[in-house]
Amino acid sequence: MALIVQKFGGTSVADCQRIKNVVSRVTATKNAGNDVAVVLSAMAGETNRLIDLARQVQSRPDPREMDVLLSTGEQVTISLFAMAAKEMGYEARSFLGHQIPICTDATFGRARIEGIPNEAVRQVIRAGGIPVIAGFQGVTSLGDITTLGRGGSDTTAVAVAVAIGADICEIYTDVDGVYTTDPNVCAQARKIDRISYEEMMEMASLGAKVLHIRSVEFAMRYGMPLHVRSSFSDDTGTLVVEEDESMEDILVSGVTYSRQEARITVAKVPDKPGIAAGIFNQISDANVVVDMIIQNTRQGDLTDITFTVPQDDYETALEIVKRVAGQIGAEEVAGDDNIAKVSIVGVGMRNHSGVASRMFDILASHGINILMISTSEIKISCVIDEKYTELAVRALHEGFGLDQGPARK
Amino acid sequence: MALIVQKFGGTSVADCQRIKNVVSRVTATKNAGNDVAVVLSAMAGETNRLIDLARQVQSRPDPREMDVLLSTGEQVTISLFAMAAKEMGYEARSFLGHQIPICTDATFGRARIEGIPNEAVRQVIRAGGIPVIAGFQGVTSLGDITTLGRGGSDTTAVAVAVAIGADICEIYTDVDGVYTTDPNVCAQARKIDRISYEEMMEMASLGAKVLHIRSVEFAMRYGMPLHVRSSFSDDTGTLVVEEDESMEDILVSGVTYSRQEARITVAKVPDKPGIAAGIFNQISDANVVVDMIIQNTRQGDLTDITFTVPQDDYETALEIVKRVAGQIGAEEVAGDDNIAKVSIVGVGMRNHSGVASRMFDILASHGINILMISTSEIKISCVIDEKYTELAVRALHEGFGLDQGPARK
Repeated sequence: MALIVQKFGGTSVADCQRIKNVVSRVTATKNAGNDVAVVLSAMAGETNRLIDLARQVQSRPDPREMDVLLSTGEQVTISLFAMAAKEMGYEARSFLGHQIPICTDATFGRARIEGIPNEAVRQVIRAGGIPVIAGFQGVTSLGDITTLGRGGSDTTAVAVAVAIGADICEIYTDVDGVYTTDPNVCAQARKIDRISYEEMMEMASLGAKVLHIRSVEFAMRYGMPLHVRSSFSDDTGTLVVEEDESMEDILVSGVTYSRQEARITVAKVPDKPGIAAGIFNQISDANVVVDMIIQNTRQGDLTDITFTVPQDDYETALEIVKRVAGQIGAEEVAGDDNIAKVSIVGVGMRNHSGVASRMFDILASHGINILMISTSEIKISCVIDEKYTELAVRALHEGFGLDQGPARK
Repeated sequence: MALIVQKFGGTSVADCQRIKNVVSRVTATKNAGNDVAVVLSAMAGETNRLIDLARQVQSRPDPREMDVLLSTGEQVTISLFAMAAKEMGYEARSFLGHQIPICTDATFGRARIEGIPNEAVRQVIRAGGIPVIAGFQGVTSLGDITTLGRGGSDTTAVAVAVAIGADICEIYTDVDGVYTTDPNVCAQARKIDRISYEEMMEMASLGAKVLHIRSVEFAMRYGMPLHVRSSFSDDTGTLVVEEDESMEDILVSGVTYSRQEARITVAKVPDKPGIAAGIFNQISDANVVVDMIIQNTRQGDLTDITFTVPQDDYETALEIVKRVAGQIGAEEVAGDDNIAKVSIVGVGMRNHSGVASRMFDILASHGINILMISTSEIKISCVIDEKYTELAVRALHEGFGLDQGPARK
């Protein structure tokens, strides 16, 4: 007997038949003696359909009105789910963001949850019913509708789980868990049975798409266990939990990659204080997020600065840098958007030296040149030529033994 | 300089281009120096699409959840309208039912408006903006979403107009006004320039579909002038206003008809007190609404009772009556669902005698037999064989001079 939050993504509720299937799954959990609260996304494709409508009427859609529009997607699925549950003889009650309320700040399009009263939801559970909660949406203190941005329904699910004191938050998706790497690139990829919050956050931020980083962050802060699993099978998926000692036995938990990067180099910059600030302030003013930054010392009083930006912002950033380069006396600006970032993640590397050099060796043994390196306590990322992406991922996956034996239990 | 509420129906906002056209129309009114508040319906077809989804998951969709589902339709159009208005350089702000709030009782699917605070809407108008209000929806005191039922957006528009003290409420639709009769049946039908609330209510309840009776009722109670007009032309439409003396100069304002009726006769009923009650109580218990009732005296102590019910309820009612007939000792039960009701409406008939006999003469002169008659102060209805419907409508339209000269100014 547990209190469980179950979240289902867009592909799981893509049509009426799938919604009925999801109801069967939820009620099976209930029949097994558990209490369940459900969080739903919009039907797959619906959000894109609505965005397309918005773009037909406004070139840069107004953020407040966009949230009014987008929040209809989840409103449709929760009402249909509640009806389908009633049809099968269960009590169910839909909750919109403003009905709970899921209180957020007023940053339309990527609002942050500030608080969730649990009384309304708990009351339905106490009465034996199933609360069916719209993911992705919230409401400001002034009554305006907000949405939480990419991966928002996962965040709703975790926040609701924390608010009602659930034992676990199950994230149902179209894959059966978190993998050691992308199975589309590496056929030897295997499902990970248990992963720590920190590793999951690194993997999410490095390109693994199964969970959004904000929901993991939220779960970690409140110690809410997550279970990522498939809505199309009954198999156990991946548990995202607090780190424990046994997790350090494995050096590397996963290999990720991202092609959505571009690199810019400003060469022969006068090596004086304030020069880097001059460049990055202006890039930041243009709302471009810089990822890796490397500064090399050259001979004399010149230096080179290299950094990466999201590929979508490459042209914007390059333009800014070229303008600034003249002002600060830099001699050359070069750019490259045919790059990729491959990363290895694992809490095991905290207490083991030599992981980085092993990574470099593996890449070198396949003739892959490393353009940039960045590290944190539990991950190492290398920027390489984009054409080597798949090769690098497979080489690292094999080189760190991720294709052998069971993944971490 | 006036304060105007403009309501646009589903065909007027059926796609993004039409929404832009509606914005142009609204802003033209604003540019002419008026303040405007807008009330919108869902895109044409959207409500049916949602109802179809609901029926796929629940045989008799739950009324509360149905309202959560259906209210998304207007949510989409108001957000798109606000975006389109901003794109054209105007300030606009969408309002959902619960954001104003439009307070209703908790009768899901056909809720009644209990009150509308005007502060939020007026504030947008004072700031020079356009409030864009979702029609058809409201919210209960407990925060549940409700819908107002058929014609609900018209009712929202009138209620908002009353709440903010508008000078007029314009109902934009796909026809250019209220007609003397259905132009599809009678090519000589002409637009009525002015009609009284009472006549409009009779016409709405007798089959004219351009306005729903509840919105007219609301407008009459608060003396809010309505202007029914086309969203596809700039022509003046029909003004629905308080009755004035000049209106009585015209005997008959319009001819309506309805084929959605069925007739049931219980023959040779013992003519004793309580017999009629015995029949109609049981029909009422089955939620069947009886329209006309006629009781004829027969020879001796027997009587015949004939009444009409909506065609959709005909089978249900017939079954009940057959059962009751045995209990009360009636000898025969007969039914007929091939009937129609044709009516003439006009405040002029209040002070003129002979209108009814003229109607009967006209029908008789075309060989149309009258099966039942019912009258009120400003209307006369006759039930006839359904096959004569169009003939009767055209004959009455011509017979009362509605096809000649200008319609009432």
